[in-house]
Amino acid sequence: MKTKSVRTTLRNTPRMIKLLFAEVHLYGRMHIKSHVLLSCFKLLPLHLCGGLRGCLLVKRQSTLAMYQAVERGSPNTTDYRIYFRNASGPISPLHDIPIFADASKKTYNMVVEIPRWTNAKMEINLKEVLNPIKQDVKKGKLRFVANCFPHHGYIWNYGAIPQTWENPEVLDESTGCKGDNDPIDILEIGFRVAKRGEVLQVKVLGTVALIDEGETDWKIIAIDVNDPLADELKDISDVEKHFPGLLKATVEWFKIYKIPDGKPENQFAFNGEAKSREFAHHVIDDVHKYWCSLIKKEAEAGGISCANVTNAESPFKIEQKDAEDIIAKSPQPGLPHPVESIVDKWHYIHLK
Amino acid sequence: MKTKSVRTTLRNTPRMIKLLFAEVHLYGRMHIKSHVLLSCFKLLPLHLCGGLRGCLLVKRQSTLAMYQAVERGSPNTTDYRIYFRNASGPISPLHDIPIFADASKKTYNMVVEIPRWTNAKMEINLKEVLNPIKQDVKKGKLRFVANCFPHHGYIWNYGAIPQTWENPEVLDESTGCKGDNDPIDILEIGFRVAKRGEVLQVKVLGTVALIDEGETDWKIIAIDVNDPLADELKDISDVEKHFPGLLKATVEWFKIYKIPDGKPENQFAFNGEAKSREFAHHVIDDVHKYWCSLIKKEAEAGGISCANVTNAESPFKIEQKDAEDIIAKSPQPGLPHPVESIVDKWHYIHLK
Repeated sequence: MKTKSVRTTLRNTPRMIKLLFAEVHLYGRMHIKSHVLLSCFKLLPLHLCGGLRGCLLVKRQSTLAMYQAVERGSPNTTDYRIYFRNASGPISPLHDIPIFADASKKTYNMVVEIPRWTNAKMEINLKEVLNPIKQDVKKGKLRFVANCFPHHGYIWNYGAIPQTWENPEVLDESTGCKGDNDPIDILEIGFRVAKRGEVLQVKVLGTVALIDEGETDWKIIAIDVNDPLADELKDISDVEKHFPGLLKATVEWFKIYKIPDGKPENQFAFNGEAKSREFAHHVIDDVHKYWCSLIKKEAEAGGISCANVTNAESPFKIEQKDAEDIIAKSPQPGLPHPVESIVDKWHYIHLK
Repeated sequence: MKTKSVRTTLRNTPRMIKLLFAEVHLYGRMHIKSHVLLSCFKLLPLHLCGGLRGCLLVKRQSTLAMYQAVERGSPNTTDYRIYFRNASGPISPLHDIPIFADASKKTYNMVVEIPRWTNAKMEINLKEVLNPIKQDVKKGKLRFVANCFPHHGYIWNYGAIPQTWENPEVLDESTGCKGDNDPIDILEIGFRVAKRGEVLQVKVLGTVALIDEGETDWKIIAIDVNDPLADELKDISDVEKHFPGLLKATVEWFKIYKIPDGKPENQFAFNGEAKSREFAHHVIDDVHKYWCSLIKKEAEAGGISCANVTNAESPFKIEQKDAEDIIAKSPQPGLPHPVESIVDKWHYIHLK
């Protein structure tokens, strides 16, 4: 369909807009369609349309990406989900995005759950089929992590490395605590604020070992391979050189972030000291092996949905058609619901 | 027009949407129209429409406010403006919003230029008729203030007290420096992130005296009278009690904020110590007197547009009709333009 004919059609009926929208997912699927849509918007009331334009730009930027995020339900509701697709169809971000972006260069994929400077606690859901990102719910309410002064939301792009699992049945040999039953967490420290659901390619620089309510919760520290500083950052010591104070703030951030919600201060293994790049690679290697056992049904899944579309050896592999059905049956995308302004409150927590 | 008839009309033609939009300014004018619009959106493609919903919610919240912000041009362009209206028509936010919200309680009006955690350098423009808010331009580029780690954008709701002027021809008796030729700046420290163009009623708690490139630039510290802590905060000493570290961070923020742009560290009078509530009231009283001279043409305006619609004694008073013309002739509202991701970069500046 040519832009001109779309214009003509739009003059006659708004139904065409609906149809166009229905075909294009957030982060888009086809470059041309985004163009067509942008042309359409020029025919629509131009003011007050910020969000629409924003979404379209995201799409256009991401058309070259290998993965697309598909928003379903309304943001700021318990229905909200982000599913993922590759060029062939729906995938699980946990099981079907490879751990390595480039194994020879030891660069990893990272699924962004929480962009820097935001505080909606979004995470890959382990229990739902295809493991969409959704907002955590505590006591029936959507969870927003407290802003602890001087920080605003998360101070890195926060997410997970796919095809990893911190096995809750295995004692971590270096921390002496069991795993937290999640994919391994990763903090991306580059200059750019990433998009929720974006898949970054990152270089691993080191790690810290948070002990969160008694469980080992590794936080891998990494930088986007496309960041201008990526080549200069070779190991954990370079982080302090280029980002002075960031590691100290990172440890403090995790120690206090649950205190406003009535939880005690979190602890760190190794006295909060960050471990090297090599150490981090070993940790990731371990949690990837646990995931391999999980996906082959060699480990007890304990409620984790292991449905996937790309792992030939997995007994949990499903057909693409069934994966399409799962997304089709999820709630229709909708307008964001309002958020209470209390989620922006700054809490003043000071450690002794 | 009833919601139902709008629904019916919308099914037939998108033109109605245009008309409805054209009637309603950002932050809205009539509660009912916002409702009608929200109903209309339910008929429109629901996904990807975040921004629209956001704008409408702002409108609905602000329908009880005495002042409305009117967006013109496209955000993130040099054309972008926010004009102001009261119940009678267009006004200047500098000259027509009274300094006092309630003179008997000594509460002031504050025009929000830069919401907390944002960094687009928006300010009341002194030279343009009706003094709309616009984004500052440096070397032909829209100005975004550098984010200096650990801070994200401005760390308070930032704006100006109307009907004040820091006279550049008068030596400030306490700082020994001349005024910076602007309305007096004010930092609102309540929990809520305000909206750009919102007019808050605030309680003044104290002040610091920034010396910015050699000019006196008072920063009044205040809290929204509707903040839950407003009653407990009586003077500047209560700020440290309830917001420990905020005053120190405030002084540091202003010292370093221009360093990433190649400027030297800023200085503070009184060794950076914050002055009391009473001191702040005297400072505001002085700068209000300078404004009184300005608006009566007793002081040299030096390029400042003093056009106003409410000051009976002012030779610069204009007719409402002429004020309407000014807004009508300004650029039509448009979609926000994209912003380069470099404006989100975190700069690591550490003072010795």
